[in-house]
Parts: sequence; C-alpha cells; structure tokens
Amino acid sequence: MTTRTSLADLPCSVARTLDLIGDAWTVLILRDVFYGRRRFSEFADSLPIARNVLTHRLNALVAAGILRKVAYQERPLRHEYRLTDAGRDLFGVVLALARWGDQHITPAGQPAPVTFVHAVCGHDTHAEVVCAACGERLEPRDVRVRPNFGQDVPAVALAQD
Amino acid sequence: MTTRTSLADLPCSVARTLDLIGDAWTVLILRDVFYGRRRFSEFADSLPIARNVLTHRLNALVAAGILRKVAYQERPLRHEYRLTDAGRDLFGVVLALARWGDQHITPAGQPAPVTFVHAVCGHDTHAEVVCAACGERLEPRDVRVRPNFGQDVPAVALAQD
Repeated sequence: MTTRTSLADLPCSVARTLDLIGDAWTVLILRDVFYGRRRFSEFADSLPIARNVLTHRLNALVAAGILRKVAYQERPLRHEYRLTDAGRDLFGVVLALARWGDQHITPAGQPAPVTFVHAVCGHDTHAEVVCAACGERLEPRDVRVRPNFGQDVPAVALAQD
Repeated sequence: MTTRTSLADLPCSVARTLDLIGDAWTVLILRDVFYGRRRFSEFADSLPIARNVLTHRLNALVAAGILRKVAYQERPLRHEYRLTDAGRDLFGVVLALARWGDQHITPAGQPAPVTFVHAVCGHDTHAEVVCAACGERLEPRDVRVRPNFGQDVPAVALAQD
C-alpha cells in the first residue's frame, strides 16, 4: 500500500489499524482464519489470490502480531497460521463488515450469503456495535470525541448529517 | 484496487463490503465525515492525500450509495458530501476499527488518540460488538455459520485458535 508510512503516523486508531489491515485480501485471509482455515493451501484454495500476494499478506499479518506461525509437522517442516489474542479481537470488525454487507449490498432477491448462529443463546444473530458502558447501539448523533493530545484531532461532535 | 471485480463476485458480505470500502483512504474519508467534515477542502486539509485520489474516492463513495452529493451554494456551484442511510450504518465498522487500534496498536506509554463519549448515557465509551439476539459479546468460539446457498461457503465452526 503506498499510503503505509503516513497512515501509521496519523494520531488516529482507525488510520493505524488500516495501516495494518487496510487491504481487502488481508481482511479476507482473516475471515478465512475465523472460518477455521490455517494452512497456506487452504487460503490458496479459498481465495482467488496469487500465491506471491498471499505469501506477502500472511507475512505481514505475522509481522503485525495478528497471526502467529506454528509448526505442525517436522519432516518436511510445515507451518500453519493461528490467531494471536490481537488477531482474535478483530472478529468484531469482520462481523461488523459482514453485517453491513448483508444489509446494504446483498443482491436484490437473494438471502445473505451466510447466517450466523450464536451458540451461547442459540439464536440466529448478527453483529450490533454498542456502547461498552450502557449497551445501547452507538449512533453518530450520540457520540462525542475528546482528543487526548495534539491539535490534529478535531473535538467536534460526530456528524449528524 | 486490482481485486475489485473478483471480490464483488464472491458469495461473502465481507468481500462485497471490502470491494466498496476496502481502501484505507476511503475509510479515513468516512471517518472524517463522521467527524463532521463535508467539503472537498476539509478532506484535503485533514488527510495527506493527493487531490486526484481524493476526487476518485469521493466519486466512488457516491457511486456506492454511501455518500450523496448536495449543492450548498449556487454561484458558483459548490457541493458537499453527506452520509446516506447506508453510509451512516458504517459508523459501527469505523468505531470497531478504532477500538481495535486503541487496544492493540497505540504506542506504548501513550493514551489512545481520542476518547469517545456516549451522550446518551454520559460515559466515556468504546465499541463492543455484541449478539443482536442476546447482547453478549460475540467471540469466535461461540459463533457458527450456516450457508444460505451454494457450496463455496464453509459450514465449519469459526476458529477457536
């Protein structure tokens, strides 16, 4: 990504996160890991991606501390990719992306590609993004921003349109 | 993005969403819109982005139905960009990205760049991604996937490691 250096330098957690995972293939590899895939051959079978691009993205995810490389066979040496704790915490991001796509870009007359089921409560589900303090859904008009340093982060209320 | 066509064709709402917004600048433009910015000059001042790239990304967001272009002045004709309902629904995705960055890539010894405040409950807050049915946080080990058509979507449980 040509924007890599400048994004990491912005005082913004969205920019810093996109510097690490702001690439379509990278997020789809993560989706595949959440689906249970771990091996290079599984990702190569699942995604229409060139092998050199896949290698590059997997290495970047390991370097970013999102995946870790674990040997599963000694002779010949073979590795698989597993989520770190930080990688596991991206699950919500992937589910929030899936929810938006289900709602807004599922082709007319088609169901969403998959339905998620929450084993804890037993219901069909989707992701909701809520306030950690009160549990209500976070809406743009209700969220304010308090900058913690510098002049670069605006203190305006988020847009109400 | 060289992956554009194939991503839109995958039976996956994550892929389809990334086909529309899977670009770092595009998501940062959306972040700016949620911060209250609406005009080309405001985005150009806020982001270290070339003007031709900014024009291209704004046009793509309008074409995708995420932003709409509204005239705010007649002579000379000037436009600003506002969120559509679909665009507003991306707020949760942006907040989920910000939360992950706050947790995992804030430089050691620094606070998160900004603190979000939820005006509804009055508390400092962050995004949690929860089950729409029961309100519990969605964890990879607890979510199953039921494909709604085709053979391309695996029915395996999501990864536990």
